[in-house]
Amino acid sequence: MKTIDGSRRTAPFTLDSLHDGATLTLSACVHKIKPMGAFAFVMLRTGRYVLQATYTPETCENDLSALREGAYLTATGVVRAEARANYGFELVLTGFTLLSQPVADYPLHVSARKLGCSIDANLKYRSVALRNPHERAAFKIAEGVCEGFRRFLMANGFTEIHTPKLTAAGAEGGANIFKLKYFGRDAFLAQSPQFYKQTCVAVFDRVFEIDPVYRAEKHNSTRHLNEYTGLDFEMGYIDSMYDVMEMETALLRAIVDHLAAYYEPELKLTGAVLPSVGEIPSVTFLEAIELIGGGKNKHDLDPADEVKLGDYFRERGSDFVFVTHFPAAKRPFYAMDSVDDPRTAESFDLLFRGLEITTGGQRIHDYEQQVAKMRRMNLNPDDFASYLDIFKYGMPPHGGLGLGLERVVMQLLGLPNIRQASLFPRDINHLEP
Amino acid sequence: MKTIDGSRRTAPFTLDSLHDGATLTLSACVHKIKPMGAFAFVMLRTGRYVLQATYTPETCENDLSALREGAYLTATGVVRAEARANYGFELVLTGFTLLSQPVADYPLHVSARKLGCSIDANLKYRSVALRNPHERAAFKIAEGVCEGFRRFLMANGFTEIHTPKLTAAGAEGGANIFKLKYFGRDAFLAQSPQFYKQTCVAVFDRVFEIDPVYRAEKHNSTRHLNEYTGLDFEMGYIDSMYDVMEMETALLRAIVDHLAAYYEPELKLTGAVLPSVGEIPSVTFLEAIELIGGGKNKHDLDPADEVKLGDYFRERGSDFVFVTHFPAAKRPFYAMDSVDDPRTAESFDLLFRGLEITTGGQRIHDYEQQVAKMRRMNLNPDDFASYLDIFKYGMPPHGGLGLGLERVVMQLLGLPNIRQASLFPRDINHLEP
Repeated sequence: MKTIDGSRRTAPFTLDSLHDGATLTLSACVHKIKPMGAFAFVMLRTGRYVLQATYTPETCENDLSALREGAYLTATGVVRAEARANYGFELVLTGFTLLSQPVADYPLHVSARKLGCSIDANLKYRSVALRNPHERAAFKIAEGVCEGFRRFLMANGFTEIHTPKLTAAGAEGGANIFKLKYFGRDAFLAQSPQFYKQTCVAVFDRVFEIDPVYRAEKHNSTRHLNEYTGLDFEMGYIDSMYDVMEMETALLRAIVDHLAAYYEPELKLTGAVLPSVGEIPSVTFLEAIELIGGGKNKHDLDPADEVKLGDYFRERGSDFVFVTHFPAAKRPFYAMDSVDDPRTAESFDLLFRGLEITTGGQRIHDYEQQVAKMRRMNLNPDDFASYLDIFKYGMPPHGGLGLGLERVVMQLLGLPNIRQASLFPRDINHLEP
Repeated sequence: MKTIDGSRRTAPFTLDSLHDGATLTLSACVHKIKPMGAFAFVMLRTGRYVLQATYTPETCENDLSALREGAYLTATGVVRAEARANYGFELVLTGFTLLSQPVADYPLHVSARKLGCSIDANLKYRSVALRNPHERAAFKIAEGVCEGFRRFLMANGFTEIHTPKLTAAGAEGGANIFKLKYFGRDAFLAQSPQFYKQTCVAVFDRVFEIDPVYRAEKHNSTRHLNEYTGLDFEMGYIDSMYDVMEMETALLRAIVDHLAAYYEPELKLTGAVLPSVGEIPSVTFLEAIELIGGGKNKHDLDPADEVKLGDYFRERGSDFVFVTHFPAAKRPFYAMDSVDDPRTAESFDLLFRGLEITTGGQRIHDYEQQVAKMRRMNLNPDDFASYLDIFKYGMPPHGGLGLGLERVVMQLLGLPNIRQASLFPRDINHLEP
């Protein structure tokens, strides 16, 4: 019998360990070897950094020929101030222990500043592409978005929930839903946690969830994924959808602050420009159509409209714009109709640099009103019996929203394709890796 | 056009607002009305608390008959110290505004200390059952487990990832996998993020993920769910699986500390006893079998064995016990064989109060070794081409583990059925709500 007490833990490399003259031991991947004649640069890639090391046979007890790009090692050396190196320091290697060797050369230019290959090659060799520091930086930013989201909402009394993705009915309607057999029954992959987060408002008042969302859409665009990460929240006791928009504005500010505070290496590497989240303009759908010179028979904003509207407000100092009061017919059955004009819904989109990243709004909370709206939309209330229970037994006024994580990251980093904001993207052609 | 600046946000009720003599306005659900003759108790349920209010026609400007259990209101009153009430205070109601009314009475005893109904009734009216404070407390504890897990791992250099649940092949083998059509191809719901978290070790060194996991198992037990929340981590540069076990021990301590610091209301309400995580004993599978007097032809621990082993170590002061070196044939193909005895694997389980909550271990990192082991286990390496790429292009020595969130919560709270640790459990009979 042994005992394990949790004390023998190794710490990963951080920039704090870089002091001129310090002896440093770290484990890393051989990112690149650059022979320079009398010496060689050995770029060491850790999980977050790329540290420059120098090798000479005089200072290092091991032979450089033992190493190749893609090898893993534990290296020891002396830290030396070097203004031209990343982080202002380099490591003068004194020795290393080889931990493992690859059996093949990288099929992509992993050590290039940017990968530079086609998106097809990137996805084909995804497990290699992600080893490129620029490529992987998107996922540290994604981590920061999630963490900023959670910290803000927890500090504002929201409870984190996890709800099922295997469901008996789609929440968002339409045919864009993956279907499977569940012990002899038909089941569907959740298009959103909508029903469940509403249910939980009656339990916890305010809830949020970060979990996968599924859309079986067949389009093959640069801005759609078939599986993505939804950042959802739902809150009770609102007076109107503007309470949700106020919360989102403060939330976005908190996320940006969190990124600025903790993700400087990735922001610098990618050259990402964080938006300032000041006052966000909010226009109605009709106002938006007018601003961009759209026609009168528009019922929704298409991608080109979103870009135009984004440009309009960017020129006036805002990376964001809310669009409210969409035609009710284009919004889901759970959206509350506007009192002023029941042809429009108390719901909104948020555009970020010309791309919709959020849909949200006030929901119906009254049982009879929800049943009536279902009937008006030719839905059978019996198909939604367990969902309707939440209204039958009482619900406070409430609303909420969903943010698409990959879209937020794509826009933050100015990525040309949303696939680069997903570790292992799922689209009509990709189910692997 | 309007502008939204994020400043007009309401704060939810917290215990900090309870001061003798203070005027308090809060939004809440009418949890219970107890007429006492000259006055009435009105228990107000917020998202986390149940506050006692008193109503008399003399002090309150509204009529009590407007309220029923399950109604939502905004109430105003004066806080009064009252030792017999929850939190030591009650609210003397001066007025309220009704926000919404239910159309039916609760079908369960929501305001009882414990629900007291069968698990079938609980699940049938799940959206109502969760409104019971004791029932919902499990999910605040679950939130705390997740947050403690994340905080500890982030502080230890782990990166949070989200990986696809739609996959081309099962990571854990066997027939217990949900299958669906994905644009004409066969796809499967992930049994674990195993392949992806390993892939990400070559990218970020250390990663973790909190996401759903699917098992199409047909058994209908008190300890299995078909969809559950997996807490996974994977770390590079380990010397052996003991590095993973050290990390888990420190992690569990951090989770317990986090619960003690932030979840006192729920711990008090449920009477949960947090384990102390000191030195965790670790026995080999063979030692374990001997300790519980099992026969020689055992190849795995069954639930009764786990209970016996848990009792054995509980009597000796530990709620936890690691079991290592299981027969290799019972572990997955990615498990590293033990050097000392290749019939056993460098993998472990962790039992918590007699229930397995973790499986983990060191993984194979060498390409040839992984291909050879697949062949020995009658698997075709071609079926795992994209997974094998990660080894071909280089992997550091690594290992990791998975924790089942619902099992951890079940054991922390001593719940008789794991379904009570899942908001909307999925089992062979339940796909709704």
